[in-house]
This record gives sequence, structure tokens and C-alpha cells, in this order.
Amino acid sequence: MHPEYEEIKNLVEDNLLRFLPETESGSSILYDAMKYSLEAGGKRLRPVLLIASCRAAGGSYSDALPYACAIEFIHTYSLIHDDHPSMDNDDLRRGKPTNHKVFGDDMAILAGDGLLNSAMDVMFSDIARHADDGSETEKRIRAAREISASAGVRGMIAGQAADVRPELIRLDDAGKLRYIHRNKTGALIKAAAAAGALVGGADEDLLGRLSHYGEQIGIAFQIIDDILDVTGDTKLLGKNTGVDAELGKLTYPSLYGVEKSRALAEKATDEACRAVENIKDSEFLKFLALDLSDRIS
Amino acid sequence: MHPEYEEIKNLVEDNLLRFLPETESGSSILYDAMKYSLEAGGKRLRPVLLIASCRAAGGSYSDALPYACAIEFIHTYSLIHDDHPSMDNDDLRRGKPTNHKVFGDDMAILAGDGLLNSAMDVMFSDIARHADDGSETEKRIRAAREISASAGVRGMIAGQAADVRPELIRLDDAGKLRYIHRNKTGALIKAAAAAGALVGGADEDLLGRLSHYGEQIGIAFQIIDDILDVTGDTKLLGKNTGVDAELGKLTYPSLYGVEKSRALAEKATDEACRAVENIKDSEFLKFLALDLSDRIS
Repeated sequence: MHPEYEEIKNLVEDNLLRFLPETESGSSILYDAMKYSLEAGGKRLRPVLLIASCRAAGGSYSDALPYACAIEFIHTYSLIHDDHPSMDNDDLRRGKPTNHKVFGDDMAILAGDGLLNSAMDVMFSDIARHADDGSETEKRIRAAREISASAGVRGMIAGQAADVRPELIRLDDAGKLRYIHRNKTGALIKAAAAAGALVGGADEDLLGRLSHYGEQIGIAFQIIDDILDVTGDTKLLGKNTGVDAELGKLTYPSLYGVEKSRALAEKATDEACRAVENIKDSEFLKFLALDLSDRIS
Repeated sequence: MHPEYEEIKNLVEDNLLRFLPETESGSSILYDAMKYSLEAGGKRLRPVLLIASCRAAGGSYSDALPYACAIEFIHTYSLIHDDHPSMDNDDLRRGKPTNHKVFGDDMAILAGDGLLNSAMDVMFSDIARHADDGSETEKRIRAAREISASAGVRGMIAGQAADVRPELIRLDDAGKLRYIHRNKTGALIKAAAAAGALVGGADEDLLGRLSHYGEQIGIAFQIIDDILDVTGDTKLLGKNTGVDAELGKLTYPSLYGVEKSRALAEKATDEACRAVENIKDSEFLKFLALDLSDRIS
């Protein structure tokens, strides 16, 4: 792993629980359930991206950290609800039993709700902490809105709704696939790059480049995810493979085949790298894009 | 119905959907599911209370409206998730089939998530709209934090977790009952009064009085709710009765009997009325408290 990736990932993991509100004794199972999924690991792509983007805009780790943790809370809640028996009914995630398998179907709904609510709470608190400085408040409000909007009913949740009811989308298969992926995974990855840029104080040009970068790696990320569901190793991935095909889901490989899908992922990765040409930290941002595209887990 | 109550309630109902983000065509079922539960009616207690409290602090309807709608979104999401088969598995709410009965168990989870996310979105947007005026921003940030914290894992969600796993609370039955009710319903009702006061520009003394008022009517409200589950009429209530007893839930009547429970509700109502003695609009606030305590539905 790239040393800078490892450094940022460790920073995120060291701080995730610090931003999670402690619960009272009466609801410690709720805390345990949230903690379980937060600690289940994963690439921490969204928070790493947010922090890297903030640094590329000249901001500091500490400015980005609350938003990085908030976006990981949101991503984690979405996985818990996505794995729920009422949704995809998955029993394995990151090599461990899914949240509802350990804490029950009811607690998994509440743990997801709790993580989403806590994410918003963390951002409101950070905005409040900077409320006496107009320009500091304003960039944080913009970052929080970027995250909140991308996670919501015109972003990630819309993508999940379309994913469980694709027959209701009035588009051809290619259009459906783009719609689902753009919203379900793309929106939050793009928001990570944009929110980092905003907290870091990027001007509109740099914000545009970093957002475009985030959008393109979001596309590549999802294509690779679809490919790995066909060609990947359950042990390495820490989740079951072949799930998409079993559920009859629309994916890049099912629509374009594996080879063409790989070419599409490479195209998006190239475009991401071009978007951050000649900016601060562009070496690391390019590494991040290429690494995601080459991954086997 | 008191004409002022009706006026505020109508205002809320006329604006609820205006604050709900439109979804794209691909996820219109998500929008329909959120809209269905928002339009299912109910007393609109929390938004009415928030607006009344804002007015009592000298603020305007329009200042309070985004927060009033946000808090109703949060309340509505909590009902959808609470009714879900993985939680209380209720099929009737406000005289209509519950959300999952109409839209499916998966969409009900997403509609709840969408309403919670939208509530936060509405508040971030309102804060952003006032970001050029320091004192206006600050009071809105405080109101949003009050709502977000009370809805979260140290408030409403903690109460729901304790309600589904009461055996994990290390308190005697009376302590458990207080813990569950204070968090599950009390926290958000108190936050409605406090957030209204904050948006309205209340000083710390008035904020304290209105918060205490909200806390006490929250207690009375929940006791009456418990009593109505025993003595109420399914048709008038629009939901099944006897549910608590069937689920073996800890309630005021099960612990204290109906008579003593009524006395406790009256005590809390009296205390609420005393807290708002001699403030602006105290007549309406007192009416609200007494009306909730006397209700049969």
C-alpha cells in the first residue's frame, strides 16, 4: 500500500469512533452494532479521497477529518441497510457476518439510522465550532450540503431505490445501469472529492477538477466492482461473489462483457488522472485512481 | 380544533412537500413512498409546537417553517421504520396501511432513510441561505443541532433500541420506562420546543422555559399514548390498540394502572403550563398542553 494511503487510512480509523456519539447504558447494543460495522474494515476510499482532495486544495488533515468520518458513517449505514434481509439479504461483508446476522434485523435498521444521523450530527457540530468565522463557516456548510445532497433522495438513496426496482426506470438497459451506478455509488464518491476540495478552500476551478476526478473514479470503481463479482475471489473480497448474476442484476459485465467493461474502467481512470494534471498532490491522486482500477479486491 | 392550531397545521401541511426534494424519474417510487407517509395525516404536534415556540420567542412563521418540516420528516421516518416487519410489524397507521404494506419492506427502509436524509438537507440548505448573516446563521445552527442530537443515538434512536431490547437496560422497570419514553418520544418533542425558541431568537431564560415546557408535554403525551393503547378506540386512533400488551411492552398503565397514569399525565401538563406562565402566546401554548392531555385519539 502507498505510504500516504496507509497514513491517511490509519488517521481515519483512529478517529472514526471518536466522532461517534457515545450512547447511554440503556442502548449500548446500539453503539456496539454501529461500532461493529465501522470497525469491519474496508478500503476507506471515501474518507481517504476526501482528505486527499482537501490537501490538494491546500487544507489540513484536521479540517477534513469530521467530514471524512461523516462520509464513512454514511457509507457504512448504506451497507448495513443494503445487506438487510428486506434488501439484498447478504450474510457476509468484509469477511464477517453482516450486521443483522450479529445484532438482529431490528437493530441493524436502527444502527443504520444511527450512523446516518450521527454523520449529520458530526457536520452540524463542526459547523457550530467555526460559527464565529464567516468564511470558515461558509466552506463547511457547502461541504456538508455536498455530502448530504449526494447521500439523499437525489443521490445514493435514489440509486438504491432504482437498484431494487429497476423495472420502474423508463430507460433502456444501458441508461438504467448508468442511472443506478451514478447515484448508488458514484454520487458519494464524487461528493467525497468535492467536499474535501470545499473544506480545503479550493477555488471554483480546482473544485471543478477535483469533482470531475471524483466522478470518474466513481465510475471506474463501480465497473471494477461489477467485474470482481464475476471474476473475483470470495476470500480476497470478503463477500460472496456471483451475487449480481444470481439476483439477475444489471451490471457492466452482463451488458458489455468483461473485456469491454475493463476498457470502460480504464477510460474513466485516464480521464480522472487528466483532471488532476499539474495540481498539488496530483501524484497521489493519480496513484489512487490507478490503484482502484487495478485492484483485485 | 383551536383556530390557531388549525392555521399552523394547515401551513405545515401546505409546505411539507415543498421541502421534500423531488426525485428523478428513475426513483419516483421512492418519492411516492415518502409522500404517502407524509400525507397520512396525524396531529403534526412537533411542527406545530416548533412554530408556536418560535412565535412565543418573537420569531416568524417563515423562519420556523424549514425546521418544522424537517422535524416532521424525522418523526415520519421513525414511524415507517418502527412499523417495519423487522421492528413492530404494524399494518395500520393513521387509519391506512403502513408504508411497507403498500411499497414493500425494502422501499420502506429506503423511504425512511430518505426522509431522515431530507430533513438534514432542509436544515443545511436553510443555514446556507442565511450564511451571510452571522447571528442568523448561528441561531439556525443551534436549532439544527438540537433537532439532530435529539433524533440521534443519544435521543430518539436510543429510545427505539431500548424499546426493542428492554432486557438489556440495567435499570428497574420504572427506570426503564422513563428511559425509553424520555428518549423515544420525549427527546424530539422537547427539541421541537427548543429549536423553535432558538430560531425565534429566544434568550437563554426563555429557551429554558420553552424547553422545559416541551419536555413536560412530551411526558404527558407519551403517558396518554400508553393509556389510549388500553382504553382507546381503533377507529378514532387509526391504529390497532392493545398492541403494547400483546407485545408485553412496559407502559405506564402496565406499571402504574390507568388511574395513577392519568394523574402523572396531569401533573406533567400542569408543570408545562406553569413553565410558560406570562410569556407571549402563553394562552395558545397552554391550550396545546391541555388539549394533548385530554385527547381521545
